[in-house]
Amino acid sequence: MRKNPERRQALIDAAIEVLAREGARGLTFRAVDAEAGVPVGTASNYFATRDDLFTQVGGRIYERLLPDETTVARNREGVQDEARFAELMHELVDRISAFNSGYLALLELRLEATRRPELRAVLTKRIREDIDANISHHTVSGLPGDSASVVLLYLALNWLIVERLTLPEIFTDREIHDLIDVAVLRLLTTTPPTPAPDTEAGQGGAG
Amino acid sequence: MRKNPERRQALIDAAIEVLAREGARGLTFRAVDAEAGVPVGTASNYFATRDDLFTQVGGRIYERLLPDETTVARNREGVQDEARFAELMHELVDRISAFNSGYLALLELRLEATRRPELRAVLTKRIREDIDANISHHTVSGLPGDSASVVLLYLALNWLIVERLTLPEIFTDREIHDLIDVAVLRLLTTTPPTPAPDTEAGQGGAG
Repeated sequence: MRKNPERRQALIDAAIEVLAREGARGLTFRAVDAEAGVPVGTASNYFATRDDLFTQVGGRIYERLLPDETTVARNREGVQDEARFAELMHELVDRISAFNSGYLALLELRLEATRRPELRAVLTKRIREDIDANISHHTVSGLPGDSASVVLLYLALNWLIVERLTLPEIFTDREIHDLIDVAVLRLLTTTPPTPAPDTEAGQGGAG
Repeated sequence: MRKNPERRQALIDAAIEVLAREGARGLTFRAVDAEAGVPVGTASNYFATRDDLFTQVGGRIYERLLPDETTVARNREGVQDEARFAELMHELVDRISAFNSGYLALLELRLEATRRPELRAVLTKRIREDIDANISHHTVSGLPGDSASVVLLYLALNWLIVERLTLPEIFTDREIHDLIDVAVLRLLTTTPPTPAPDTEAGQGGAG
């Protein structure tokens, strides 16, 4: 296997574009070579198998979806209240949506994971770790809400991005913005507002 | 174009399986013929183009995802309260998850919609109509919540099904069950519980 790290990264980035544009079946070494503008045979010197290529693409997409240092620093500033948290969620949705091909490629990877157990194991580990990290981060933040708040936001925002990227006319940008605000407000609310006398729901908070 | 309706339906059902298993690029007339066990050339007598096939597959998946008459009748019975509504959501998630290949095929169609404007228009119309119908149904049900409740549930449950079908080890069945209950409870709650004196959020409910 060749080891030039810049070349490897350029090939993986090219693979992301191929995957988003052509789908999983279109992701061949030859298509990656063409997309990266390198001689035929280059990609096959960098990746042992297509499985290997799929797995490395997954890791690279998550790497590219991380916030930059400025964003991370800004996110740590100021009061950690619901309004600030909603701002972070807007920033997150916009950041992920902006890497259009990366997110579409991730969806392709998920579908391909139903066919490739090795890829499924890698994605499962990565995503479960991300969810757990978000839960831990939320727990120490002092914000209202619990682990279900974090997971339900993760679910709702992921499909919101799917909707925006695959069928962009379903929701306007304004609707997307308002949905994020309402999702944060309601999902961080763990205590029921005014429990009706005839319901037992929401009384047992110990679970 | 041939017009035997049973044959057409069998071909479309075969196309759903091909799409889920092989991805959008694998959905060829020849693959559909093979999956349906009919002579080569049959599918091309029933569908003018691959666009036509993709569009008809979309319509058929939604048709097969509809509840049967027994479920519809049962859903209309009894008191329409949050607990009943949560039951409906459990039934919905289980019904959609059970049609594994249909849901995976829908994800493939969404990705293909980024490449096919005609398919995108058909899916957009269909899904927007479904969302609007769900909102209308919810409005007349007398249940708490508003249109944002309906849309946010739609978003969260869709990604929950994606998770279950593509990376089934992320959440256990028990976690999925509990997440649905919490999602219903919190998203149907429109009034903030105990507004802190220093916040203006949630006061203007007229919008």
